[in-house]
Amino acid sequence: MDPRVREHAEIIVEHSTDIEPGDDVVIDAHPVAEDLVVALHEAVADAGATALAVQERFGKRFRRAYLRSHDGEFTERDFPDHVLALYEAMDVYVGVRSADNATETSDVPPETIRAYDQLTQPLLEERLDKTWCLTQYPSAAFAQLAEMSTEAYEDFVWDAVNRDWGAQRDHQERMVEVLDPASEVRIRSGETTDVTMRLDGMATINDYGEANLPGGEVFTAPVVDSVAGEVLFDKPVYQQGREITDVRLVFEAGEVVEHEAAKNEAVLTEILNTDEGARRLGELGIGMNRSIDRFTYNMLFDEKMGDTVHMAVGRAYDECVGEGNERNDSAVHVDMIVDMSEDSTIEVDGEVVQRDGTFRFEDGFEA
Amino acid sequence: MDPRVREHAEIIVEHSTDIEPGDDVVIDAHPVAEDLVVALHEAVADAGATALAVQERFGKRFRRAYLRSHDGEFTERDFPDHVLALYEAMDVYVGVRSADNATETSDVPPETIRAYDQLTQPLLEERLDKTWCLTQYPSAAFAQLAEMSTEAYEDFVWDAVNRDWGAQRDHQERMVEVLDPASEVRIRSGETTDVTMRLDGMATINDYGEANLPGGEVFTAPVVDSVAGEVLFDKPVYQQGREITDVRLVFEAGEVVEHEAAKNEAVLTEILNTDEGARRLGELGIGMNRSIDRFTYNMLFDEKMGDTVHMAVGRAYDECVGEGNERNDSAVHVDMIVDMSEDSTIEVDGEVVQRDGTFRFEDGFEA
Repeated sequence: MDPRVREHAEIIVEHSTDIEPGDDVVIDAHPVAEDLVVALHEAVADAGATALAVQERFGKRFRRAYLRSHDGEFTERDFPDHVLALYEAMDVYVGVRSADNATETSDVPPETIRAYDQLTQPLLEERLDKTWCLTQYPSAAFAQLAEMSTEAYEDFVWDAVNRDWGAQRDHQERMVEVLDPASEVRIRSGETTDVTMRLDGMATINDYGEANLPGGEVFTAPVVDSVAGEVLFDKPVYQQGREITDVRLVFEAGEVVEHEAAKNEAVLTEILNTDEGARRLGELGIGMNRSIDRFTYNMLFDEKMGDTVHMAVGRAYDECVGEGNERNDSAVHVDMIVDMSEDSTIEVDGEVVQRDGTFRFEDGFEA
Repeated sequence: MDPRVREHAEIIVEHSTDIEPGDDVVIDAHPVAEDLVVALHEAVADAGATALAVQERFGKRFRRAYLRSHDGEFTERDFPDHVLALYEAMDVYVGVRSADNATETSDVPPETIRAYDQLTQPLLEERLDKTWCLTQYPSAAFAQLAEMSTEAYEDFVWDAVNRDWGAQRDHQERMVEVLDPASEVRIRSGETTDVTMRLDGMATINDYGEANLPGGEVFTAPVVDSVAGEVLFDKPVYQQGREITDVRLVFEAGEVVEHEAAKNEAVLTEILNTDEGARRLGELGIGMNRSIDRFTYNMLFDEKMGDTVHMAVGRAYDECVGEGNERNDSAVHVDMIVDMSEDSTIEVDGEVVQRDGTFRFEDGFEA
C-alpha cells in the first residue's frame, strides 16, 4: 500500500475527526477506495474505536441501479429507516469521495435524484449533526475528470491532504478576523459579477482540514434576504454526473430571480426547484489553499483554490448562523466558483480586502 | 452484466427472502461481488423496498486490518453499537460470500477472531432474528479454492443457484417425513464413523434456497446430551482462512471429549474452546442437492452435496429446537462433512433410510 494512504487515514482519525476510544465510526466509500478504507480500519482500531464500511452516498452504481428501477414517486415506505438508525447510533461519519466513473449517475433523471434527496434529507441532517469528514481517494476516474494522469493526480491529492494543518489554520485565521465582524461584503469580478450580501450576526468558520479534507477556506452564511446583484460562475459545476457551465444567477432580496447556463441549464433548473431554500444562498466561501493550484472539476478541491470565491445555493451550515438569525434550509447544497485572479475585488464594509487574488495581509497587495 | 446475475438477484428477493414493499434491506458483500449488489438494488427497488450495502462480515481486508491493529483484548467499548442499531432496524439481511483472496484472514491470530466473535455475538443473534439469506458470488478466488477455472466455477455456482426451488422442495420433503418424527439417528461410514444421537422433540427443516442459496439439505438439531460415538470428517474444513483436514471427534454424553486433525489442529482446538456450546453439536444435516456434484471447499455448497451428511459444532438454529428442549448456544457454528457414498448407512429408529448415498425413496436403494 502507498504509505501516503496510511498518512491520509491517520490525519482523518487523529486530526479531522479526533476519534476517541469507544467511538462508532461509519466509513462511506466507493469500492475503488478500498486501500484507504483498510488504512482507516487500522487507524480506527489504534484509536480504540469501531468501524463499519458502507456504500450509502458513494456506491454510485448501487444508487443508479436503485433510482433507475424506481418509478420516481417516493413515499414514506421508500425511506431507509435502517440507515437513519445507523446514523443516529454512530459517533463519526467519514465520507470518501471516489468512483471508477465520475459520470455514473448521468442517466438518472434529475427529478428522480431531486425527489430522492428530498426524501432522504433526514439522513443528511443526521450526518451533519455528528462529527463528520468528507475526503477524496485519488482514483483513475477522478484523475480523468481533472484531465491528469493517475500518478500526477495521486500526487496532487496527497500533497493537498497530507500537510501541516496547524500552519494552514494560522494563515486563514487572518481572513476570519476580517470577515467575522463584518456587516457587508461585495464581490466584484470583471463585468459579469457584482453581488453584495450582509453578514450581520453570522460566524465565519476557519476550515483547516476537519469536516473537509483537504480544507483550506474560510466560509460563512449570508443573511438570507440580503443577497442582491448578479454572479457569473466561470468554473464549471459537476452535479448528478453532469457538467453545468457558465452558470449565471441574478439575486433580488436573497432570491434567485433569473438563472441561465451554457450547458445543462435543465439540471440547474432542477436544483433551484428542489425547494424554497434551493433558490437562496447558504454559503459564501473564500478559497485560501495555495497548494491547490489547478482546477480539477471537483468541488472538494476547487472551492479551496487560492484566487477564488464560491457561493452555494441551498442549505447553510449551522455553525455559521448566529443565534436569532434565520438558517437557510434545503435538501441541497451546491457550490459554484468565481475566479478572482483578474480584475476582481472583495470589499468588506467598503474596504478592499483582496485584489486580484492577493489578500491585504499578503505581500504584493495594492491598496 | 451476465444475465445470470440478475436472475440470481431476483431469486434472492422474490424467493429466498420474499422482500415486501417498505422492507429495509442490508446487503453485506465483498467489493468483488459488485455486480450482484447492483442487481440486488434493482430487484429491491422493483419490490418497493430499500437497500444499504455494507461490508460487515464480508469485507475481509477491513476485518483483517481492524483485528490485526487491535490488541486482542476486547471490552464493551469495542462493541459496534451502530451496527447493532442498523441490524435492529432492518427487515432483511442478505450476506454475499465472496472474496478476492479466500485466505485473507489467515494471519489474524485465531484467539483474536474467537474473542471478536464472542464480543459481537449480539450481531449474529440480531441477524438470525430477521429474515436472512446467505449466498455466493463466484469470484476468481473462490474458483481457485475450488480448483476450477473462473468460467467453470461461474457455471457451477449459477447452475446450483438459478433453478426450480419448488421441485427441490418436494424432493426433500420425503426425507423430512422420515426424520421429523424420528427418535434416534445412527450415522455409520467405514471403520471411522459411528455416531448416534436422539432427535426427540426436534424439528427437521426443509432448506430449499431460503436462508441458504443454494439450498438443498434437510437439517435438524440433536438433543444436546444425546450424541455418542466417533466421527471422522473426511472433507476438509475452511475456517478463519485456514484448512483443517481429517477432523476426528469423539463424543460422550453430547460433548467432544477427544479431538484431532491432520492439519491445523490448533485452529480446531481454538474453535472448540470458544465456549461451552462449541464442544457440542448444534446441527445434523443431510445433503440432497445433486446439482452440486463436486466438493469446492465452500461449506455453503459442500454441505448440500448429495451423498454427504454434515454436523456442526456450536449454535443450533432456533427453528430446529422444539418447545421444552434445550437449544445449544454458542458464538460459533462450524459445519463438517462426512462422505456417505461408500460403505455408509443412515439408520433412523433402527431402519436403514440411506445406503451408500441412495435414499430408500429413490431408485436403486437396496434394503
